Amino acid sequence: KFLIRKSDIPGLHKKFHNFSHKGDYGRVIIIGGSVGKVGAVLMASKSALRTGSGLVHAHIPKGERLVLQIAVPEVMVFDSQEVQDYKQFDAMGIGPGWGMNVDISFYRELLSNYNKPVVIDADGINLISKNPDLLKLIPKESILTPHIKEFERLVGICENQEERLRKAKDLAKKHHIFIVLKGAFTCISCPDGNQYFNSTGNKYMATAGSGDVLTGMITSFLGQGYKPFNAAVCGVFHHGLAGELASVVKRRGLIASDIIDYIPATYTQLDID
Amino acid sequence: KFLIRKSDIPGLHKKFHNFSHKGDYGRVIIIGGSVGKVGAVLMASKSALRTGSGLVHAHIPKGERLVLQIAVPEVMVFDSQEVQDYKQFDAMGIGPGWGMNVDISFYRELLSNYNKPVVIDADGINLISKNPDLLKLIPKESILTPHIKEFERLVGICENQEERLRKAKDLAKKHHIFIVLKGAFTCISCPDGNQYFNSTGNKYMATAGSGDVLTGMITSFLGQGYKPFNAAVCGVFHHGLAGELASVVKRRGLIASDIIDYIPATYTQLDID
Amino acid sequence: KFLIRKSDIPGLHKKFHNFSHKGDYGRVIIIGGSVGKVGAVLMASKSALRTGSGLVHAHIPKGERLVLQIAVPEVMVFDSQEVQDYKQFDAMGIGPGWGMNVDISFYRELLSNYNKPVVIDADGINLISKNPDLLKLIPKESILTPHIKEFERLVGICENQEERLRKAKDLAKKHHIFIVLKGAFTCISCPDGNQYFNSTGNKYMATAGSGDVLTGMITSFLGQGYKPFNAAVCGVFHHGLAGELASVVKRRGLIASDIIDYIPATYTQLDID
Amino acid sequence: KFLIRKSDIPGLHKKFHNFSHKGDYGRVIIIGGSVGKVGAVLMASKSALRTGSGLVHAHIPKGERLVLQIAVPEVMVFDSQEVQDYKQFDAMGIGPGWGMNVDISFYRELLSNYNKPVVIDADGINLISKNPDLLKLIPKESILTPHIKEFERLVGICENQEERLRKAKDLAKKHHIFIVLKGAFTCISCPDGNQYFNSTGNKYMATAGSGDVLTGMITSFLGQGYKPFNAAVCGVFHHGLAGELASVVKRRGLIASDIIDYIPATYTQLDID
Repeated sequence: KFLIRKSDIPGLHKKFHNFSHKGDYGRVIIIGGSVGKVGAVLMASKSALRTGSGLVHAHIPKGERLVLQIAVPEVMVFDSQEVQDYKQFDAMGIGPGWGMNVDISFYRELLSNYNKPVVIDADGINLISKNPDLLKLIPKESILTPHIKEFERLVGICENQEERLRKAKDLAKKHHIFIVLKGAFTCISCPDGNQYFNSTGNKYMATAGSGDVLTGMITSFLGQGYKPFNAAVCGVFHHGLAGELASVVKRRGLIASDIIDYIPATYTQLDID
Repeated sequence: KFLIRKSDIPGLHKKFHNFSHKGDYGRVIIIGGSVGKVGAVLMASKSALRTGSGLVHAHIPKGERLVLQIAVPEVMVFDSQEVQDYKQFDAMGIGPGWGMNVDISFYRELLSNYNKPVVIDADGINLISKNPDLLKLIPKESILTPHIKEFERLVGICENQEERLRKAKDLAKKHHIFIVLKGAFTCISCPDGNQYFNSTGNKYMATAGSGDVLTGMITSFLGQGYKPFNAAVCGVFHHGLAGELASVVKRRGLIASDIIDYIPATYTQLDID
Repeated sequence: KFLIRKSDIPGLHKKFHNFSHKGDYGRVIIIGGSVGKVGAVLMASKSALRTGSGLVHAHIPKGERLVLQIAVPEVMVFDSQEVQDYKQFDAMGIGPGWGMNVDISFYRELLSNYNKPVVIDADGINLISKNPDLLKLIPKESILTPHIKEFERLVGICENQEERLRKAKDLAKKHHIFIVLKGAFTCISCPDGNQYFNSTGNKYMATAGSGDVLTGMITSFLGQGYKPFNAAVCGVFHHGLAGELASVVKRRGLIASDIIDYIPATYTQLDID
Repeated sequence: KFLIRKSDIPGLHKKFHNFSHKGDYGRVIIIGGSVGKVGAVLMASKSALRTGSGLVHAHIPKGERLVLQIAVPEVMVFDSQEVQDYKQFDAMGIGPGWGMNVDISFYRELLSNYNKPVVIDADGINLISKNPDLLKLIPKESILTPHIKEFERLVGICENQEERLRKAKDLAKKHHIFIVLKGAFTCISCPDGNQYFNSTGNKYMATAGSGDVLTGMITSFLGQGYKPFNAAVCGVFHHGLAGELASVVKRRGLIASDIIDYIPATYTQLDID
């Protein structure tokens, strides 16, 4: 068991040379959203842009597209009829605000055909709990980001955090995936059996949408070409740090949008150019 | 008759430990909104988030959902067809922008089946004035937040403020509810007959939407597990203080959205972590 | 001919006591907007709020309502089917973004039945130019705010500014209205034949929507109970001053929304509480 | 081959006298947008306003109009059924977010009938690559702003930047147009065979929407009456400078909307009043 420290982070970040272009920063897609829950995709996709992605797409129900277009004009919006090939994306974040009325055959094909690691959160995880056969379709080295309830839907009720951590380790090893178990000390369980604990963040971040922001951040790093482990570690660390910085002025009034606004400040804070 | 002073407030606030999660900060719902008046729910629900709620839902007509989704992506939007059980919510704020064309049987069932205190404002109050049988269905220790006109629709025209305060005391005692009579010195009448006067706020806060913000704030405190008395007192005090802080730069130009923006600053001002 | 100076302004403003309520600050309505031109009403109604109105309504085509609801949640939106009696409003601002496809019989009735001064701008003026019989229906002491082209549509092409000013004076006297002829030195022609020139503003304010902001401001002052002359003078002076303050940082990049944002600062600048 | 330096810029800008009105700052239109890609027009038209245009119109599919109306209320929205004569516009920016399902006969007529220089970007360029006969319809001295991929669709795959620059020079001379080849050192190829390299900008600007902002800026300068060469040079220089200024606080987190926000600061930076 390891603690992720501030000094660990700069070495995990990619360096980009001065002639980098939009494609070098990755093309990612956030898949999720449903009627009344599109805000989750708004926050995830905006977070991906603020984390550094070059191009961010959103796959949501067509009737909800104005939400994204107005609030984050940089994002392009699609629905499932339009996207011919998801392999064009460098990374996918699946699940924010998706609801449970998802066409499971679409989800199954999505996981089956894509051969790079993805990020799965929220209803993306809940749907797997309801359809456990999906578990083995998850691309190797993918990153699942459940909170405690979502995690227990997946592995069964646990007596305590110790049992959860043991089961997270087992699940990560068995399916060769990363499990980011969110909480006061978010734990990243790796396919090799190692577990890493995050040292940033605070109680004010226990607020609606905080998880959607994390999904966007990890997806962004994946799409920028970070190794999945580095993407997960940088994601949870910068997410927690952004929340800490926002909390100085927002305290109990902190909302998830504040975390997004403070993402750029985390790069300054860690002196990452 | 008591005056609420700055020094009274910190002791009324809950303390949250460092391992608190989203649920500890409560799941609340704002029920209201109608065509052309959805802004009221936008402001109430955003205020609830800024006051510290963990999860905020909005129950509005489905066709208006984009308003909420764009402006406050953290909020999830439902309509009456979708919510199966309102008991899942730790608190409800009823009435902002609701209009008078509300299905009264829905409102009646809502009050009848819910067994925790609620916050009722605006058209939520006007509908009770038109359907006085609803008065006895209000859950014990609920908080009604009428301005003078709404109050007089409920109890009849009063000759002066003294008569209003007497009638507010009677109503509070009779139905075992809290009456927050809004005005220059907002008065909280309690079920035990005591009356408390707020010392914060100023004339600039007499502006459209100011009441919706207060509804969101009190609902938020209720949902966080505050006792109704504490929720009402903290609500009116922080609301008035946020308005005062905003007025320093906005003066006559203060609008209700400014009050929301300054809610976090009230925690700093009172040194509440 | 008089120049409006900074020292003239404070004396024209109303004082509000500490027990003022929402109604004291007036209930106004902005009537205008059409498909693709609703932004004009957004800016006028937001300006009215920022100038100090207690309640602001917007009358626009129903299908465009989300624009207002999202961007200015404090505003309530109606269309012509809904409003039974316009006399409930303390002031009306007519014309921003209205287009020329307006039901003239609606406009005629609106002017005929309302017995208080109104503000007429943009297509509200152009429609009068096309239907000159409307001119005599304008309530006495109303304020028309044409720019040069709109003015010449009303009175015919003029050879120079001198001729325009002469015709403005004649029109104001004949119909007992105020003509605010907008330009580098905006001129207010009064029913008594006097003409006043504004001393604030700069070239950066020659930008789309600047006039809509002015309409909102004058309508707001009217609704707050200012005499029409005072409303017009305070409107043009504060509008120009807000533009000057915004220009310090925005220069050529100034847009009309910036002017709105700086309205509160004009109260501080002139030390009006 | 020339390098564009900071000291070159002030002399290229127009001076506006104090009695300038809205029309002097030009009336421009951005033509583009499609379902799910309207954000591009939002950014281009907002950039045009922030660069100094007096009036900005947007031609987009009617169903997407709310996006523009809410986010940039200063812009008026039209679709192709409504605009009778495009010659009323002082400049046009064609292509942002347009998609490839454009009625080519509309595009052909647009280019054929308009007799002033235009700005063509993104799908406006891609459509020309697919319909090469359009190339000769482009008005003389128009400005094309391709990134490398768009450029190679137009002229064929190139082995290296040297070949691209040679082909850009040839294309510019042959069709008497300006080619702004975007990249780390954006190159402006002129009809007279000269090539100019921009010295502002950085890697953080390689992000979605950055090009749409540039399109809006050059279109704005054209519409303000700048010679096409001056419009192109001022556009690329101020665009890069705005990005640099924004990067100081945003670093990797820079998004295209930040560039727009910093356009006014470039005027201060270069001391252009």
